[in-house]
Amino acid sequence: MSKIFKTEAEITTFGGKLLKLSHASKETKTNMDVNVYLPAQFFQSQAKKLPVLLYLSGLTCTPNNASEKAFWQPYSNEYGFAVVFPDTSPRGAGIEGEDDSWDFGTGAGFYVDAETEKWKENYRMYSYVLKELLPSLASDFEGLDFGNISITGHSMGGYGALSMFLQNPGKFKSVSAFSPISNPSNCPWGEKNFGNYLGPDKAKWAKYDPSELISKYNGPVPKEGILIHTGLADNFYKAKQLLPENLVAASKGTKFDGLVKLNLVEGYDHSYYFISSFTKDHAAHHAKALGLSGSKL
Amino acid sequence: MSKIFKTEAEITTFGGKLLKLSHASKETKTNMDVNVYLPAQFFQSQAKKLPVLLYLSGLTCTPNNASEKAFWQPYSNEYGFAVVFPDTSPRGAGIEGEDDSWDFGTGAGFYVDAETEKWKENYRMYSYVLKELLPSLASDFEGLDFGNISITGHSMGGYGALSMFLQNPGKFKSVSAFSPISNPSNCPWGEKNFGNYLGPDKAKWAKYDPSELISKYNGPVPKEGILIHTGLADNFYKAKQLLPENLVAASKGTKFDGLVKLNLVEGYDHSYYFISSFTKDHAAHHAKALGLSGSKL
Repeated sequence: MSKIFKTEAEITTFGGKLLKLSHASKETKTNMDVNVYLPAQFFQSQAKKLPVLLYLSGLTCTPNNASEKAFWQPYSNEYGFAVVFPDTSPRGAGIEGEDDSWDFGTGAGFYVDAETEKWKENYRMYSYVLKELLPSLASDFEGLDFGNISITGHSMGGYGALSMFLQNPGKFKSVSAFSPISNPSNCPWGEKNFGNYLGPDKAKWAKYDPSELISKYNGPVPKEGILIHTGLADNFYKAKQLLPENLVAASKGTKFDGLVKLNLVEGYDHSYYFISSFTKDHAAHHAKALGLSGSKL
Repeated sequence: MSKIFKTEAEITTFGGKLLKLSHASKETKTNMDVNVYLPAQFFQSQAKKLPVLLYLSGLTCTPNNASEKAFWQPYSNEYGFAVVFPDTSPRGAGIEGEDDSWDFGTGAGFYVDAETEKWKENYRMYSYVLKELLPSLASDFEGLDFGNISITGHSMGGYGALSMFLQNPGKFKSVSAFSPISNPSNCPWGEKNFGNYLGPDKAKWAKYDPSELISKYNGPVPKEGILIHTGLADNFYKAKQLLPENLVAASKGTKFDGLVKLNLVEGYDHSYYFISSFTKDHAAHHAKALGLSGSKL
């Protein structure tokens, strides 16, 4: 079925198939990996196109981490949506220093289009995901409906999900996030990545920062609101890297007032043990918005 | 709560807690790691002791692999049983050659008590699990009922589960296995491990081989039988390392005739993607035998 993508592996799991795909990206000028989980429904009938959930991963992750440990597959199958797991940066771009930090460069594209000289040729994860990856998948997978799509993610990917949702009114039916970096302009991770990729001008940072974007958003608002879970035992939350309260505060008086549903959950950390514990809730949130509420779950 | 075990990490997940424990083992003369998942019920009420599922992992695995990827936690919580994930061998015993092979030595204790000079001091995983680990956990965790216990495992651990069940009539309420090495005396993995740990006398191998033990078993037979899933796209199945058909054949005319429920499942491989797809079925199998059939699942 793939014309643009090369199938590196096809793994049967939970009744559907996890495809490990790769393709040559024009945006990043590198080879990019992406995983796609196709639920059993995809193979049972092509009559109805299936909706899609875009899952953006956090710092250091490849498409394999969430595929193995976030446990979307059972819910994808129950409701009947596909899940797309992009990579988190270009890899092997050959930029000096790209592998020096675990939280910047390789594995940390931060879902922006870089503007600084050093990074702007390859670090274009915003355009890569939205303008290249999704249209390419739509072309290769005719059984999926990329017009009926929702977005979620974890940590850096939670920020990415909120950012892409708010930058593109109406594109995504719903949004949720697991321990998102909610106000990157005001935390060390965001300052490091925005500073290096976008330069010192904070007006450029604001174009990507969910806590800035939410006050200017003028698109359709999903009636379920924005679902967020963050663990109170999360060391990055404690270190003020995540700042979800800033997003809630920024939503006051906006169209999202009262609709940023922040669940601060006792005892949970930042790991996949936390993510997988709430995947079911996020799947239900998106399934409803994607018109799949009639599922047996 | 722990007196024998040191708690290395305590991770909240799916409403319960995963404990990463360690202890100094007398059987292996090494420090041993073990993970224990305690479902939410363990913390809600100590009035009723909770049953236990013993999960034995496959070649190369530590207690962390299944904890992260086999997805027992949601079912453990739904039904209310704890899960114990032992390690697969001593580590750092200091025996020459112990780290030379991925499928022998470290990560490959094969759940036997070694009898050969070189290995017999440390490689005592049979006695370690049954005579040291379980009693020690029973001592430290009074809220768990180690008299109401079932056993399962994957690959080498699937063999371990079948072997320990059949060697100890009445000890385990039920048994199941994911892609078990079912007749180790007749496959390369078994020949290599039994040969090195037990020596050339095949009578010693028969004491551990499920396809030998089943014909001599004279204990209680769980009425649900023995539940087995093996993937037809499993390269180790194709390479005749697993031989589940030999166990079915050996059960003919025994108390297990018709009760070895071998499910050969199309498309599935040997990975955690396969295991996690059928964890739900195995959880239901064991929950019933452990008296938890009244669960909402």
